[in-house]
Amino acid sequence: MINVTIWNEARHEYKNAVVASVYPEGIHGAIAKAFPTTDFVVRTATLDQPEHGLTDAILESTDVLYWWGHMAHGEVSDEIVAKVKKRVLAGMGLVVLHSGHFSKIFKTLMGTTCDLKWREANDRERIWTVAPAHPIAKGLPECILLETEEMYGEHFDIPAPEELIFVSWFSGGEVFRSGCTYQRGQGKIFYFRPGHEIYPTYHNPQIHQVLVNAAYWAASSRGATPVYGNAKPLELLP
Amino acid sequence: MINVTIWNEARHEYKNAVVASVYPEGIHGAIAKAFPTTDFVVRTATLDQPEHGLTDAILESTDVLYWWGHMAHGEVSDEIVAKVKKRVLAGMGLVVLHSGHFSKIFKTLMGTTCDLKWREANDRERIWTVAPAHPIAKGLPECILLETEEMYGEHFDIPAPEELIFVSWFSGGEVFRSGCTYQRGQGKIFYFRPGHEIYPTYHNPQIHQVLVNAAYWAASSRGATPVYGNAKPLELLP
Amino acid sequence: MINVTIWNEARHEYKNAVVASVYPEGIHGAIAKAFPTTDFVVRTATLDQPEHGLTDAILESTDVLYWWGHMAHGEVSDEIVAKVKKRVLAGMGLVVLHSGHFSKIFKTLMGTTCDLKWREANDRERIWTVAPAHPIAKGLPECILLETEEMYGEHFDIPAPEELIFVSWFSGGEVFRSGCTYQRGQGKIFYFRPGHEIYPTYHNPQIHQVLVNAAYWAASSRGATPVYGNAKPLELLP
Amino acid sequence: MINVTIWNEARHEYKNAVVASVYPEGIHGAIAKAFPTTDFVVRTATLDQPEHGLTDAILESTDVLYWWGHMAHGEVSDEIVAKVKKRVLAGMGLVVLHSGHFSKIFKTLMGTTCDLKWREANDRERIWTVAPAHPIAKGLPECILLETEEMYGEHFDIPAPEELIFVSWFSGGEVFRSGCTYQRGQGKIFYFRPGHEIYPTYHNPQIHQVLVNAAYWAASSRGATPVYGNAKPLELLP
Repeated sequence: MINVTIWNEARHEYKNAVVASVYPEGIHGAIAKAFPTTDFVVRTATLDQPEHGLTDAILESTDVLYWWGHMAHGEVSDEIVAKVKKRVLAGMGLVVLHSGHFSKIFKTLMGTTCDLKWREANDRERIWTVAPAHPIAKGLPECILLETEEMYGEHFDIPAPEELIFVSWFSGGEVFRSGCTYQRGQGKIFYFRPGHEIYPTYHNPQIHQVLVNAAYWAASSRGATPVYGNAKPLELLP
Repeated sequence: MINVTIWNEARHEYKNAVVASVYPEGIHGAIAKAFPTTDFVVRTATLDQPEHGLTDAILESTDVLYWWGHMAHGEVSDEIVAKVKKRVLAGMGLVVLHSGHFSKIFKTLMGTTCDLKWREANDRERIWTVAPAHPIAKGLPECILLETEEMYGEHFDIPAPEELIFVSWFSGGEVFRSGCTYQRGQGKIFYFRPGHEIYPTYHNPQIHQVLVNAAYWAASSRGATPVYGNAKPLELLP
Repeated sequence: MINVTIWNEARHEYKNAVVASVYPEGIHGAIAKAFPTTDFVVRTATLDQPEHGLTDAILESTDVLYWWGHMAHGEVSDEIVAKVKKRVLAGMGLVVLHSGHFSKIFKTLMGTTCDLKWREANDRERIWTVAPAHPIAKGLPECILLETEEMYGEHFDIPAPEELIFVSWFSGGEVFRSGCTYQRGQGKIFYFRPGHEIYPTYHNPQIHQVLVNAAYWAASSRGATPVYGNAKPLELLP
Repeated sequence: MINVTIWNEARHEYKNAVVASVYPEGIHGAIAKAFPTTDFVVRTATLDQPEHGLTDAILESTDVLYWWGHMAHGEVSDEIVAKVKKRVLAGMGLVVLHSGHFSKIFKTLMGTTCDLKWREANDRERIWTVAPAHPIAKGLPECILLETEEMYGEHFDIPAPEELIFVSWFSGGEVFRSGCTYQRGQGKIFYFRPGHEIYPTYHNPQIHQVLVNAAYWAASSRGATPVYGNAKPLELLP
């Protein structure tokens, strides 16, 4: 079983009637429904819980953490961010969603501003797969159509993705690197673009497929244990 | 001075009145005009010349070779392709243009089919820079607009680009990795998508800018000389 | 079950008494013993069999192909190489071993000379893991010690590895990029350095571990089906 | 002219007589001598100067910053680190040297622990070029021999280098990825391993060559200006 924890700042849902009607169980609740119970144990956590719902016990028992935030990035405590980062570097998978590009955890793992271009204008989005052999693309059509979404455009100030899996097309004229993977320490990271709070993106079955594929990928079997520190010579010095 | 050789199969220009009117001096003639004479010595070569215009003397004195082909890839001799490949691996830059994706030289350097999706329907194309810090993007606006072009869509069956510089948006709904760099041996390779024969793409000043930037990049100063073959021990064996 | 086919030119074993004594069942026979029968169906194929043992039926039913060759690269038919390449691009995994660096199949997939430096002088080799999180490193110690091996040194004329997993240290003073992965089309490729014919490398349990890890990795679940060719517009043209 | 600033914590020089005798003008003073005055304007800056010698005026006028630190990483102010990071992301080159792997600026740009293995035992080091075509390798022999150096071994916990240029061999049996490049924002970063304070590494002409090559590379011509923020539609919405 893969242990997934879905973190959501869960603020828009209480402040905006449109968001509340689109996500009556919260964005985290909608994402949670993506995962088949045969393979996954799913928990959710939100900003306003103690320790933002991310206690040591929960982090230690999480294989893949999903992160959605937007209006309250600044309220996430630096201490919790440090703990999450430590767990990612130790091997926990991390899936950063949409406006999570500006979250503390993503910026500290990337080392860049993670800035981008955007427009709220009901653009149509087409998410094209450019790495069809990648397991995160498993079972997908050649592109996923989202009838309305917020536009994100280049330039997206991230390190060059280690694997670029999706590129989005927007009806307003832009493109965006929408599915990007990174390895940091022992942990796998996947950034996935769509998911503006006023659109039903997280109810879309193909988006669910991507989210589930990402969990299998990010939780996949570990390699070897890295060794650090002071070392003795392996060979006799000549 | 950088020695540029522009190779063109130069067949459409003689068979299609539209192409002849768009490129009265040939596609190679239009590309040649991109390069300022202060920094470049430009030659052209075409399929129907002896040795396709690519004699040993010309190849040896070429810093960057541009390649445009489409309907006659099969007529390019394997022997000339082998010579060009050897020169690229020895350090000559190579810029492969548009339908050159299916040329023998590009396929043998990539190792893949280089297949893609396409449509001739007067799409509008926007070429977005996704790596603005790259020298090939120097002086460009955030996107280059081409009012009409052939569409190329994913999946483009190439090795993952070492650097992805441009991504195209098409009005018909597709995206394409339009500017891709590779290093093979000592040689730098740049694939650049636009340039269907019936459109005036190679008269566009911003496209000229990309072509010139690519020459500076592909001809840039060499590193060290690689060493191969049977070797003596550097240390006493224990 | 994962279907593994181990291809060996199997010539040294018949011409050199040392090799015959080290590998009485052939190099392919020794490699075959690495794979647990719980997860793998293993077949072997050799140069002197009809179609080099690589019939269409065998290739079609192979998930991961291992390739060992050295003195007879030139005797491998171009037709069979073309078939193997087509299968790799369609998704078959390929593990290229040691002197297979100069095989036709590796060179045609890489696009470079694949040349390197070498020395037969009973060097000690230490194979260090530089990507411990990678599944091919699963269960390994921080380095694998081989008491005697042929030295391979840089420069190794390959495209920059997409993932660099192992780097070898040699007692004579050299280093080598010993474990390199590539994706070509839908297929995963792993080059693994050790395995000179006169040493018992392929009887080493840690080397077995790498070979088995590579099979799990190279056969891992496929993504989506790429689409090529003429396409209709997805959006109404403006 | 390229403006280089060499930053050194400059503490060992005052506390350790061996270091003082090896580097009577400081490590920064020795590095400064690498750069030909024809192409470079060189300044130095040290920890105990006001603002660590890195005022806004100096940072703004620096093309490439070199960074050597070891025992006093914790004394570097977070405010100065934030300013340096901002300048790197805006296009200033950064060359991180040896024990600078644990500096605040390198860790914040990498996003990982940057931990490694080490040994102070007068190892012999051979720095092999694995990317001879790279401009940072220009003019180098196939390996640089340092008769005595501190050993750094894998695992080195960094993001996979975008370009791996050097790999070190140590007489004690280890290897290390010694020359690694990254792009972060508009800035180029080069990590270069050798340079323990008690050895005369920074007086070595080949090491000087690498440092100078790195400056040309990291200061090389900029590309385009990235665009961020709220955007208007480029195409009419359908």
